[in-house]
Amino acid sequence: MKIVIKGLGLIGGSMALALKGHTDVYISGMDISAEHCHLALRSGLVHDIVHGEDSFSGADCVILATPVDQIEQEICGILDATGEDTLVVDTGSTKAAICQAVSRHPERYRFVAAHPLAGTEHSGPLAAMRGLFAGKKNIICESEKTSGFYLDRAVRMFEDMGMHTVYMSPDEHDRHAAYVSHLSHVSSFMLGLTVMDIEKDESTIFELAGTGFDSTVRLVKSHPVTWTSIFIKNRSNLVTALDEYIGHLINFKECLLKNDPIEMERLLTSANRIKHILK
Amino acid sequence: MKIVIKGLGLIGGSMALALKGHTDVYISGMDISAEHCHLALRSGLVHDIVHGEDSFSGADCVILATPVDQIEQEICGILDATGEDTLVVDTGSTKAAICQAVSRHPERYRFVAAHPLAGTEHSGPLAAMRGLFAGKKNIICESEKTSGFYLDRAVRMFEDMGMHTVYMSPDEHDRHAAYVSHLSHVSSFMLGLTVMDIEKDESTIFELAGTGFDSTVRLVKSHPVTWTSIFIKNRSNLVTALDEYIGHLINFKECLLKNDPIEMERLLTSANRIKHILK
Repeated sequence: MKIVIKGLGLIGGSMALALKGHTDVYISGMDISAEHCHLALRSGLVHDIVHGEDSFSGADCVILATPVDQIEQEICGILDATGEDTLVVDTGSTKAAICQAVSRHPERYRFVAAHPLAGTEHSGPLAAMRGLFAGKKNIICESEKTSGFYLDRAVRMFEDMGMHTVYMSPDEHDRHAAYVSHLSHVSSFMLGLTVMDIEKDESTIFELAGTGFDSTVRLVKSHPVTWTSIFIKNRSNLVTALDEYIGHLINFKECLLKNDPIEMERLLTSANRIKHILK
Repeated sequence: MKIVIKGLGLIGGSMALALKGHTDVYISGMDISAEHCHLALRSGLVHDIVHGEDSFSGADCVILATPVDQIEQEICGILDATGEDTLVVDTGSTKAAICQAVSRHPERYRFVAAHPLAGTEHSGPLAAMRGLFAGKKNIICESEKTSGFYLDRAVRMFEDMGMHTVYMSPDEHDRHAAYVSHLSHVSSFMLGLTVMDIEKDESTIFELAGTGFDSTVRLVKSHPVTWTSIFIKNRSNLVTALDEYIGHLINFKECLLKNDPIEMERLLTSANRIKHILK
């Protein structure tokens, strides 16, 4: 089985590691960055590096793990450049714009719009982790537009990586992702900016870290280009989520200004209920 | 050496575990909750449970690990109820109000205002962890108001737990703590509320968790009473920090509304600099 992975960062690299474990899999890597190509080859993520659209010939599967705006731009070209034998899968964190971009392509049935829900705050080929996807969820959108043969192959591939697939519409995916993933990233990035603005004396961050800060700002280390592209693509859902979040923060601030411990304890207890929802 | 710990939650319980490892230490526990007393005794955090102010007689050290508003209310009474041989140490997460409350007590010199910087999102005696404090920082405020004999004893006790002590004024402590600890907790609590408001169908939180959300909302599980008391006590610094944070979020939202990826990438890259500050 020949697999081409375009984008050799955290996600593409970790998929390469997960798939390379299986016999009879030959993995070719592509990346716009020569350094990423070099590192991916040297650290054994891929069997070889390929360039240009010819590289797709004979591929059983092409996996797109580039930033979401690039996936949106190139998805139709990739379907054009691949033949009837090739399954094309993307792994982007937003799904509506990508599904829209590919919706009228005559071979839409060879495409699977996926979002494997896994990651860390690190990026690039050296951030690739064996087992990153094991036990995690994978979302597939508009599965009804993919024909059974290609869908089965994709689901099996994600199962081989230890993932369980859940089906959703692209709009539903993007709306939930805005709250459950993208808002967390924004909150972390902005918390990082706030603290760096104020704590001009950086050594104090060192002194006082370990008080909850490290956990809430973990995501601030995430890759700016990857996340700019995600935030912009999910703009409208994210603005709604941010409005809600800012509303809650203002409400909390008013509670502080009123010096109202009873109302504050009620607010925190109510947030605390999430204990019973999350493990 | 006889130590009395008042407040047998995460902090008091973990201090008991850290100190109990040393020979010749006898630890008595006090807690307003009969259940906490029972659990602390049963899980071997303390040698016995004591009640009432008589319990302090003969103690070499009294450690206060109750919520910060309670410490503020009872600190003078504890100094009154203890004799010349007794060091009194608090462990509260805000320091200005407590230092203010004790400032005119004639035996202020027997008190050490401390904040051992360690914790988890869990609470109660069963959350106590051996080694919680090892390798962490401890803040001591207004050390100049404690006489050398008592200060040395306290510093040695924290060192025995593996902590390194840093000295700060109470105002400086509270200002930094607002940004580096308390704001992180508020951001997490409000993120939890926002997501629960919207994700009425709780199963979706399950499906999509593992996308950064779990890390940013870890602190939402923190104890509402403990944190209400901290937020209210550090009200004025926290309002300033919240205003800055809300300002950054609004700025980010405007950048989304303007659909400006260049400015957004600049913002995220600038937040990303924290990578070089935090490990």
